[in-house]
Amino acid sequence: MSTLSVFSDVTSAQKLEGSLLKTYKQDIYPNKMFLAYKVCMTNEGQPWVSSVVHKIRQQIAQDPSLNYEYLPVTGMKSFIQASLELLFGKHSQVIVENRVGGVHTVGDSGAFQLGAQFLKTWCIGSQIVHIISSKKEQHGLVFQDKGFIVYEHSFWDSEQLYMNPNILLDVVEQAPHGCIFVIGNIGNCKLTPSQWTALMATMKRKQIFPFFDIPYQGFYTGDLEEDTRFLQYFVSEGFEFFCSQSLSKNFGIYDEGVGILVVVALNNKFLLCVLSQLRNFALALWLNPPIMGSRIITSILCNPSLQEAWKQNLKAVVESTMLIKEKVKEKLRLLGTPGCWDHITNQNGTHGYLGLDFQQVEYLVKNKHIYIPKNGRINFTCINACNIDYITESINEAIRVTKDSEKSLEEVNDS
Amino acid sequence: MSTLSVFSDVTSAQKLEGSLLKTYKQDIYPNKMFLAYKVCMTNEGQPWVSSVVHKIRQQIAQDPSLNYEYLPVTGMKSFIQASLELLFGKHSQVIVENRVGGVHTVGDSGAFQLGAQFLKTWCIGSQIVHIISSKKEQHGLVFQDKGFIVYEHSFWDSEQLYMNPNILLDVVEQAPHGCIFVIGNIGNCKLTPSQWTALMATMKRKQIFPFFDIPYQGFYTGDLEEDTRFLQYFVSEGFEFFCSQSLSKNFGIYDEGVGILVVVALNNKFLLCVLSQLRNFALALWLNPPIMGSRIITSILCNPSLQEAWKQNLKAVVESTMLIKEKVKEKLRLLGTPGCWDHITNQNGTHGYLGLDFQQVEYLVKNKHIYIPKNGRINFTCINACNIDYITESINEAIRVTKDSEKSLEEVNDS
Repeated sequence: MSTLSVFSDVTSAQKLEGSLLKTYKQDIYPNKMFLAYKVCMTNEGQPWVSSVVHKIRQQIAQDPSLNYEYLPVTGMKSFIQASLELLFGKHSQVIVENRVGGVHTVGDSGAFQLGAQFLKTWCIGSQIVHIISSKKEQHGLVFQDKGFIVYEHSFWDSEQLYMNPNILLDVVEQAPHGCIFVIGNIGNCKLTPSQWTALMATMKRKQIFPFFDIPYQGFYTGDLEEDTRFLQYFVSEGFEFFCSQSLSKNFGIYDEGVGILVVVALNNKFLLCVLSQLRNFALALWLNPPIMGSRIITSILCNPSLQEAWKQNLKAVVESTMLIKEKVKEKLRLLGTPGCWDHITNQNGTHGYLGLDFQQVEYLVKNKHIYIPKNGRINFTCINACNIDYITESINEAIRVTKDSEKSLEEVNDS
Repeated sequence: MSTLSVFSDVTSAQKLEGSLLKTYKQDIYPNKMFLAYKVCMTNEGQPWVSSVVHKIRQQIAQDPSLNYEYLPVTGMKSFIQASLELLFGKHSQVIVENRVGGVHTVGDSGAFQLGAQFLKTWCIGSQIVHIISSKKEQHGLVFQDKGFIVYEHSFWDSEQLYMNPNILLDVVEQAPHGCIFVIGNIGNCKLTPSQWTALMATMKRKQIFPFFDIPYQGFYTGDLEEDTRFLQYFVSEGFEFFCSQSLSKNFGIYDEGVGILVVVALNNKFLLCVLSQLRNFALALWLNPPIMGSRIITSILCNPSLQEAWKQNLKAVVESTMLIKEKVKEKLRLLGTPGCWDHITNQNGTHGYLGLDFQQVEYLVKNKHIYIPKNGRINFTCINACNIDYITESINEAIRVTKDSEKSLEEVNDS
């Protein structure tokens, strides 16, 4: 038997994600906590699932009329239609004019994979991609793999502790002509009307191609329309763009990989050409998208009373998340923690920045076994009645200890 | 509003697949028939689903203990373990020596996508790929997209009407050193022991990297072990290889996209390096594979009595398919159709070649509304008691008419 392996030059890959979760899992401390789950959690510490989904799952399993054939390459038509109406509104200009379409993808990663492949092949825009998102590493990877030059940014201003629209405006101002902009949670970034006007004008002048990421429609404000209103601005200004629409999180079907790559074109002719090319890329990528998630979602969206019940579910999540944030802020206030904590409640959505620096985060991870990403962006739904005291007291401790050590360092330097 | 579209250079893509189905769907003839479905059909003309799957679907939908979190990037561990044991046998050398592993992919297309990306990046083998498979177009597309030079072949010998092992042996003999071989339904190609020895020796000498495609384990002979016995030959000869294992078809869960990219390496160290690289590719491709299909399959494979019931299901399908083939052959014999039709029953599996030439296939499509791919390879489970007479009579007619026209053409030429 030969001992020469064809794999002998293959090195072990650096883990690009999940190492925090791995460290957490290996930690034997009994009261360890993980505040970086991607999915929305219930008060009981379980992944949240819309109550409507449970019912629909059972109905589907018991329905003898369903067949289990392959979906078409571009996915389930009724699912795409219903999802586009959710994103833009039934009477939106792009729907009426038949110039928006979508391809059913395997989650939002699949949507970015497909979109990036199209953009690379058809050289739409330059080979430069600016990513402004809280998920910038993940998206960056996809574009880098295809040979794009990627620049990553975050809306979060760690000095002024808010999502700063000027970061976006500055990056757009300095970006080269014709590049691609991947834009994440812009809904959290409160642009004034004049900032919107400036943004649109610069993007238009520079022919920048926007690629939006909408992973949590309804989870920002609890109002589906409000959460995607900014898309209407781009539509009415005559932009063409891509959009990754993920429906995994707002239905609580995280494990089914349900996404759509949405295409907005100037007219139906261009749209059909783009969709036909995307279809061929999808053919090679996964041939047929998985059906279960889209079947569940379509059953809910196409039934007005189920859709209403789901919307109520979303509102309840948003209200309960806001309540958690209020409580965290109040507890920190009562503990006399240095600093102002309004930024916690000023951010919409399940995920948000705590506004801690790297040293404070490290203190929480190493000394308190509270696992938080380096940027301090946590999932607030991981906080509940059982752990809120420990978490807020630990944050308070982390801030005091690191401030004290800075102070003593300053004193040493001063003396 | 600007009328300059960024998409204005995007052409409409040629459809690469499915145009036969599209033509069939557009045909208004009431007795039209489609004999090219990818999935196994029941006697009632519905996609076959293992009876065990129905039960498990209901159990899963009603199980309150399940959570719906994301799967890890490489998929469900228990699912991969159970599937590898199915492929190689629990006590196989590669499993005992811990040098086989797998990555859960979105169907078999996902497995080829992932494998091709790895091979391209790590330059394993040359940039030449030979594909010997009945699904050669689909696999070819994936490799071509990545810049490989692709040569496509079929085992089917249309002169001698059988799966000819010499085609494989010849292609291997002429292939350059270090190329990649994608090998499809080799189980249908009956190599003699000396042919196996010759094949192995040449592949070894030329350091050819095999990439097997196993889309239907259990559907060839009705015996799961028998269907993948050839893998043991490669294992015992010390080959390293990839294998796409699809479990969609043999469970009847076509729409869930369940596949595995299987990696066999010389030792555990090499295996872990390869898996770590594959994990990062999967991260960018789809991040998390969809769970439903793997959950169903794992529930069945990990329960001995359910696994046994499923195996009986598979046997019943194979027996019923053989019965259909016998009937087709018998009907053609009774009609006095010219030619010998033993090749129909000599082929294993749900799909097989009818042994018709292009002209005969065209006659069936255009004149009889029986939709058959150009190569004459049909899904025999599409034939049932309701349509068998029409189909066999039409085949008989097609052969007589085309033979007559050839004859009169010959007579014209002779005169």
